[in-house]
Amino acid sequence: MAQRIRGVLAPVLTPFKADLSPDLERFVAHCQWLLSQNCGLAPFGTTSEGNSLSVDERADLLDSLVAAGIDPSRMMPGTGCCSITETARLTSQAVQHGCAGVLMLPPFYYKGVGEEGLYRYFSEVVQRVGDARLRIYLYHIPPVAVVGITTGLVERLLKDYPGAIAGMKDSSGDWNNTKAFLDAFNGFDVFVGSESFLLANMRNGGAGTISATANVNPAAIYELYRRISEEHRKAGSIGEGLDTAVADAEGPTPREATARLDPEDLQAKLNVVRDLFFEKYPMIPALKQAIAIYRNDPAWTKVRPPLVELTAEQAKGLKAEILKH
Amino acid sequence: MAQRIRGVLAPVLTPFKADLSPDLERFVAHCQWLLSQNCGLAPFGTTSEGNSLSVDERADLLDSLVAAGIDPSRMMPGTGCCSITETARLTSQAVQHGCAGVLMLPPFYYKGVGEEGLYRYFSEVVQRVGDARLRIYLYHIPPVAVVGITTGLVERLLKDYPGAIAGMKDSSGDWNNTKAFLDAFNGFDVFVGSESFLLANMRNGGAGTISATANVNPAAIYELYRRISEEHRKAGSIGEGLDTAVADAEGPTPREATARLDPEDLQAKLNVVRDLFFEKYPMIPALKQAIAIYRNDPAWTKVRPPLVELTAEQAKGLKAEILKH
Repeated sequence: MAQRIRGVLAPVLTPFKADLSPDLERFVAHCQWLLSQNCGLAPFGTTSEGNSLSVDERADLLDSLVAAGIDPSRMMPGTGCCSITETARLTSQAVQHGCAGVLMLPPFYYKGVGEEGLYRYFSEVVQRVGDARLRIYLYHIPPVAVVGITTGLVERLLKDYPGAIAGMKDSSGDWNNTKAFLDAFNGFDVFVGSESFLLANMRNGGAGTISATANVNPAAIYELYRRISEEHRKAGSIGEGLDTAVADAEGPTPREATARLDPEDLQAKLNVVRDLFFEKYPMIPALKQAIAIYRNDPAWTKVRPPLVELTAEQAKGLKAEILKH
Repeated sequence: MAQRIRGVLAPVLTPFKADLSPDLERFVAHCQWLLSQNCGLAPFGTTSEGNSLSVDERADLLDSLVAAGIDPSRMMPGTGCCSITETARLTSQAVQHGCAGVLMLPPFYYKGVGEEGLYRYFSEVVQRVGDARLRIYLYHIPPVAVVGITTGLVERLLKDYPGAIAGMKDSSGDWNNTKAFLDAFNGFDVFVGSESFLLANMRNGGAGTISATANVNPAAIYELYRRISEEHRKAGSIGEGLDTAVADAEGPTPREATARLDPEDLQAKLNVVRDLFFEKYPMIPALKQAIAIYRNDPAWTKVRPPLVELTAEQAKGLKAEILKH
């Protein structure tokens, strides 16, 4: 069995043209930059406005990324839709491209559905895809999807599909929930949805993080991941897996100042950057605004409705705060 | 301008085959029966498991219904997806078929989005469809979609697109909310999402109901609508519109007992039937089970995950209660 992916992944922001169509050139460039920062790619996630794209647009974009030379083995595209048919279609495509895995939302239209219905849904998708290379990361994000992933569901799925059910992304924002999954299962890779839990997750056997902020702060987040991995290696307890890092020679080297910091300090620094984006501003427009600032490229601010870009005043405030860091 | 649709519509249940693919033959037969009961068709709504179908499946099914001779002028398909691209595609198709209108959910993935973002979303869809025949019925169903339709949003949309924004379906289950929309706007047709509010809605200037229970009790619901329409006609205050009724000669005639009842009594009888389905059982599986019972056709019980059909015990209980009525 191929090694499973570990480390830091970004739910890749999707740039749009003025007519709201996806901007492939900017998308590829952003993916290349993230990869160069030791950051894997989770395109079509929540931060990616993945569900604001049609299924055809998602399929075309994934084909285009691969055609542009983006390495599928460092990709975990979001493929969870409300319909089994569409989820199976996007998942099959990702598997055929040799993607490291897929990040799969539960069907999120009907609320209050039970464990049995969700089990049947995921089970049906696994059977329709019917490929031993399939690696599903269940996506738990109750503040957005409302429908969530429970330990009872994972237990049933793992029992019946131990190869296909690879892990989860926990975006509950609740460490007790993450801990419950870490404690309950072996061979089930838990990624936290916020790097603010990265240290805790790694010290408790987690696999890394898939975090929105990795779009703008990937190297620093990876540095914390690398440190703890090193601790584990020294202790002989490292989990097996394919690191999201590029080969050492190519990747960014941590600044000397960072190299002297404790993991706890690295974590504290990550939290400051994260808070900058999450406390004051709507997160996705703020991240796009930040890329527009870093790249001096205003086209990056475009979002698809129902999202709305930052106001001029918000953009100015964000810029001032970014320059402070 | 063509007359707008009024009356009773069913969010048409979608029958599935054993392999979960849509069962066109049963679907057409159910549509034909509903039409014969003076009931218009709102396929691909919540009760239809519309969002459990792929966009391609929805498009193919609408083409197939029209090809099978189902009258588009008595149809209001659900076309609201999370992406502008898909919503515009399905809406354009419906307009090109000459459908009476479309029932449009707001984009329902992102929660807590503001009025501005929703305005931009619907505005973009209207502009992309770009057809003077477009009639949008905004779909407010906060218990499921979580994202809702506000009077402020309707005010902005009506101002800019008075031809395209035709009305709404209010499935809030909150009469005060329905009343607020009825009071706020003229030329905006409000359908209640439950026939339990039909009498109140019609007496306050509403256009009718689009209700799940119309799948199993269409003639009785239409009879209440017809009575109040008759009251309005006598009072000279009838709203203009194309009734969902078939020509009188073809339609079912109310039973003599029913003909002697007051509207209030008719409403009370509707509520009893509705409660039978909504109080004790998960609604969509129970409605499918009821059709399976009426038609003596067990294939009708099939639902797509994440929904789950009734248990054998529930099915038995439902059958006993149906036979009492």
